[in-house]
Amino acid sequence: MTGRWITANLKPMPEPTQSPTVELLEGLATTRAIRRYTDDPIPDDDLAKILFAATRAPTGSNRQNFRFLVLRDGEVATAAKRLLGESFRTGWAEKRSTDGYEAGSGQDLSSPKARMAATMQHFVDNFERTPVVVLPCIRVRHGGLIDGASIYPGCQNLLLAARGLGYGGVLTGWHSPVEADLRELCAIPEDHAIAATIPLGRPQGNHGPVRRRPMSELVFDDVWGGDASWAIEPSGTQHTQAGPKPT
Amino acid sequence: MTGRWITANLKPMPEPTQSPTVELLEGLATTRAIRRYTDDPIPDDDLAKILFAATRAPTGSNRQNFRFLVLRDGEVATAAKRLLGESFRTGWAEKRSTDGYEAGSGQDLSSPKARMAATMQHFVDNFERTPVVVLPCIRVRHGGLIDGASIYPGCQNLLLAARGLGYGGVLTGWHSPVEADLRELCAIPEDHAIAATIPLGRPQGNHGPVRRRPMSELVFDDVWGGDASWAIEPSGTQHTQAGPKPT
Repeated sequence: MTGRWITANLKPMPEPTQSPTVELLEGLATTRAIRRYTDDPIPDDDLAKILFAATRAPTGSNRQNFRFLVLRDGEVATAAKRLLGESFRTGWAEKRSTDGYEAGSGQDLSSPKARMAATMQHFVDNFERTPVVVLPCIRVRHGGLIDGASIYPGCQNLLLAARGLGYGGVLTGWHSPVEADLRELCAIPEDHAIAATIPLGRPQGNHGPVRRRPMSELVFDDVWGGDASWAIEPSGTQHTQAGPKPT
Repeated sequence: MTGRWITANLKPMPEPTQSPTVELLEGLATTRAIRRYTDDPIPDDDLAKILFAATRAPTGSNRQNFRFLVLRDGEVATAAKRLLGESFRTGWAEKRSTDGYEAGSGQDLSSPKARMAATMQHFVDNFERTPVVVLPCIRVRHGGLIDGASIYPGCQNLLLAARGLGYGGVLTGWHSPVEADLRELCAIPEDHAIAATIPLGRPQGNHGPVRRRPMSELVFDDVWGGDASWAIEPSGTQHTQAGPKPT
């Protein structure tokens, strides 16, 4: 035993811990909405990498009319998080009731519905403690769907980069009830839309495969509804269970 | 010398060539618009992986009201590519003139402006030969920017997955002048918007770092315009040169 102990100690010390790298396609399939964060802050250099990835995304004609406002623990950020927290709690209370989270399978606390409700309640109750909240903004050009082509790819890059560095977040739209106050507080210009609210932090749980509908429902070949027989999923792909899921 | 040669030949044969894997963060920073494709088709299994990644993206409340119509060489697809090709050529001819691609530095054939114009001309002239064209569609819910949060993350996943497998593409909006005809041809329902046209193929050139504005112009801390001094770019980051760039 002693000999083995000595041999083990003669091995070179391991390098300082680095996040294991994530392969691109694996990252795309395993970045899911994360709503429970530890209190760990996101160090500056990781945050820089996350925002760098966000700003490398495409925009219409490469105009780059996107801006990312990062709320951490500054004066305005603290007030903005409070405002958002109130809006999120109101929004969730309404959704919980409207979408019947207490009804049916929601009465079984181990059901997916009840577990989602518990996650959402934790998420909104602790919103102000979220280490970083990003407000991605886009200068309005067309005033419709197509403006989103210049901001949501960046939001996805941001979430993917967070995943790559061991963080998680979620793309939400629950700022909208307080958008006017938020805009004034953060001095966001009139001609820019707030496209989303993205909280980010170190996940309490683990990343894992996302659940979606089978590809056969989502991908068509040649014509709407056309069977894409080639669209075969990796073995073991998990699919969405019934029931509403909030964003 | 002979001895060394023999030793080298006694080493095991290398494994058959596989696409080198791309690390997630590197992929996010090196996926740029690709507009020149070889005539190589995209094999079914690669196309399946690309669409799988697209359909793993987030959507509002995980509703997954997105659909991806894949145009290859079927009857409808061939007609749709022709319709799109005409629309792209008209769109580019207008943009080339309106944005003054022939003027100023555009007269120097080695200028970025002239090279972009040549790429665009090649792109639209050969549109019908593009191996795969994807029409990402979204069921309209709010009728504005926020609907984009349920389709453009998927478009970005699609482009990133293509990059990961050695293909390239570009997110364009040039279907809009022919949207009504395209919708009828492909039997796209009234309540679904065509969010983009994404051509995909094997790049003639190489992927490389994208060029964007410096992060200091795109990322704010605490308040609009607030200096994000921590947002430091990787050394060697290349920035956008002046002049318009079409999508």
